[in-house]
This record gives sequence, C-alpha cells and structure tokens, in this order.
Amino acid sequence: MKAHADCFTVRTRGKGMTEITREVESVITRSGIDLGTATVFVRHTSASLVVMENADPDARRDLEKFFDRLVPEDTPWFVHTLEGPDDMPAHIRMALTRTSESIPVMNGRLTLGTWQGIFLFEHRRSPHAREIVVSVTGC
Amino acid sequence: MKAHADCFTVRTRGKGMTEITREVESVITRSGIDLGTATVFVRHTSASLVVMENADPDARRDLEKFFDRLVPEDTPWFVHTLEGPDDMPAHIRMALTRTSESIPVMNGRLTLGTWQGIFLFEHRRSPHAREIVVSVTGC
Amino acid sequence: MKAHADCFTVRTRGKGMTEITREVESVITRSGIDLGTATVFVRHTSASLVVMENADPDARRDLEKFFDRLVPEDTPWFVHTLEGPDDMPAHIRMALTRTSESIPVMNGRLTLGTWQGIFLFEHRRSPHAREIVVSVTGC
Repeated sequence: MKAHADCFTVRTRGKGMTEITREVESVITRSGIDLGTATVFVRHTSASLVVMENADPDARRDLEKFFDRLVPEDTPWFVHTLEGPDDMPAHIRMALTRTSESIPVMNGRLTLGTWQGIFLFEHRRSPHAREIVVSVTGC
Repeated sequence: MKAHADCFTVRTRGKGMTEITREVESVITRSGIDLGTATVFVRHTSASLVVMENADPDARRDLEKFFDRLVPEDTPWFVHTLEGPDDMPAHIRMALTRTSESIPVMNGRLTLGTWQGIFLFEHRRSPHAREIVVSVTGC
Repeated sequence: MKAHADCFTVRTRGKGMTEITREVESVITRSGIDLGTATVFVRHTSASLVVMENADPDARRDLEKFFDRLVPEDTPWFVHTLEGPDDMPAHIRMALTRTSESIPVMNGRLTLGTWQGIFLFEHRRSPHAREIVVSVTGC
C-alpha cells in the first residue's frame, strides 16, 4: 500500500471547460498504484470540476450556456461584486458543480467510462492559472 | 492496509432514482475493510449519484420534478440534441448532481445517516444498463 | 500506511453556512497522516457541504440567497411537505451542493487554497445538531 500526491497548474483562457484527463492519468502512472482511489481537487472557489462528455464539444458549450443563464452576471441583488460582475456568479457556478472528484483506479488507470473526461470549469472571464492537486492511495 | 474495487451494473427503467445502498455495502463486506473510505463512481455522463432521503418516495419524486423544471427538455437553444430532447438535459442534470460520492467506512459499514440512501439518478427516458465502480481503501 | 476516522457534531442556528475547516484539520492532525486523502461526509439529507470563499461573508450570503430563490419555499407543487415549507427545498439544495468532499493531504495538512474554507450548509430554518464524519487514509 502507498500514497502519492502531485500538483499541476492549468492555464485557462477565460470562461469554459479544459480537459485535464491526461494530466490526472500521468499522476496515477507516476504513483505506481494499480488499485485504489484517485482524488482530484481544485484549489479555487471560482473554478470547478465536472466529469463530462468528451466527444461532442457542443455538449460542453450547451452546458456552459446553461450555467450562464442559470446564474446571470447582471443579477442586480449581488453584494459581493468587488472583482466585477463575473465574481459572484463564478462562486455560485462552482458551488453547483464540484471542487473534488474521486475516481476508482484499476490496472493502474482511472476507471472512467468511454465518453467521460475530467474537465476544469473556469468561471471567470479573464485567463487564470488554476492549481489542481491529485492524491492517490492504494497498492 | 488494503485496497479493493468492484463493478456492478444497474438496470434503470427510464428517468428516476434507484437505490444502490445494498450493492455498495456488499462491496465493502467483500473487501474485508473495517476502517477507511469507500468511493462510488458512475461511468456515465447522463446518469448521476445522489445521497438522498430513503424513507418517503414523495421526496424523491419532488426532487426529480424539480430537475425536470430546472432543465426543461424543450429548451429551444440546445445544440447537442442528436440523441433526442432528453440528451442535453441529462448531461446538465448530471453536472448539477454528482458523478462520485465518497463515504467513510467504520466497523465494516458505510457511515450513512439513518435517513440516507445512495441513489443512482437516471436522466434518460429509456432504460439503460449503468455501470458503477466502488473502490475501498483502509484496514 | 494507515486509516483513521472521527466524528464530530456541528450545532447550526438555522439556515446558513458554518465553517468547519478547523474541526476537519484537527482530525487530520490526530490521524498522524502526512500524505494521503481526507474525506468529509455529512450524515444528513437537509444539510450539505461546500468548499467556499472564507474571506468576504457577503459572498456566502449571496450564495445562500441564490439558493433561496432557485428553490423557493412556497413552491406550490411540492408533495413532501410534512415537516414544513423548508423541508423539500432543503433536500433539493443538498442535492445541488455536496454530501461528501475529498481533499488531498500533504505535509499533514489539507491542501486547501488560500481562500478556501470547508462549510457546512444548513438548509432547515430551525437549529440542528449535524453529524460530520471525516476519514483519512495515507501514510
């Protein structure tokens, strides 16, 4: 049995999803763990994680558009607006998706389904450097 | 210390929730692990997980109805509609709930509260065979 | 390698968020684990978890208000209303946020970002005693 953890940075280009499956898989490989659990964690409150369809980019664009409409930037009653109109919507969209995702590991690989990819979901308008931590425990 | 992982399939009958607590508990028992963490993972992007009230079925029906209204099937601006009007709403409802759920294990059992059950939440209209992976690490 | 688990109770004062980062950190310290994964789990279906901004309380108030509007207490079609108008909204707000959160541990500490805190999100109007379980696996 062993435990392993690694960090990496993802440079986003403003609002939208960036696939990070390969980066997470690399941490599993480096850990040398065949069987166990991997945990992916975003160290921010205005970006989040979603395990989403990795085939049709339209599916991700529709998802992004849905969140833009569910939590509009021009909501008049937001108080926490110091960093701009995309500040508070970013926190809410993060709270509605995920900060951590845990995925079983078998045969040294994530047990993702055929159409699943791990995506970092950036909720701020401007590009950001987002830190991701991955821990793996198992044998 | 040890690690264990198992898969099982849940046959859904269209949109709605199916309790899978017993199937997850079985994996814990087979693992022989008394103390640690169990992770439940759905290998799909149009079905998800919720730890929900296991007593009154009305609570689950109200939850399902809420998601039907929050993400309507007849949303006119969805682009990703190749598989039908329930395709894109299924991905969004998945993103708003969970793909993985991690639960501490003590005395060889999930530490669920009295009224908590683990439910697979099917978001497509037609029946599907959904694959669930459970990993357990501990001693 | 070792595994550790502990429970604690949080007394809430009705709807709103209570930071529990320190309580979770204490469990990590008591576990003696330096490197691995911590899992936080709420044993209830009308309270949930969010890793949220720990600086400006306005951000948390805006988030709470958003959920109050997204899932209104006076929704006329709710059937599961035995415990009052805040009963069903509580379950839905829980389903939209998280029951479990997993966080990598490095150097004996949670790898939270600078502005992240772990919050218990109470969804019922009246004060409640909420049980939290934390498990840690690693070395």
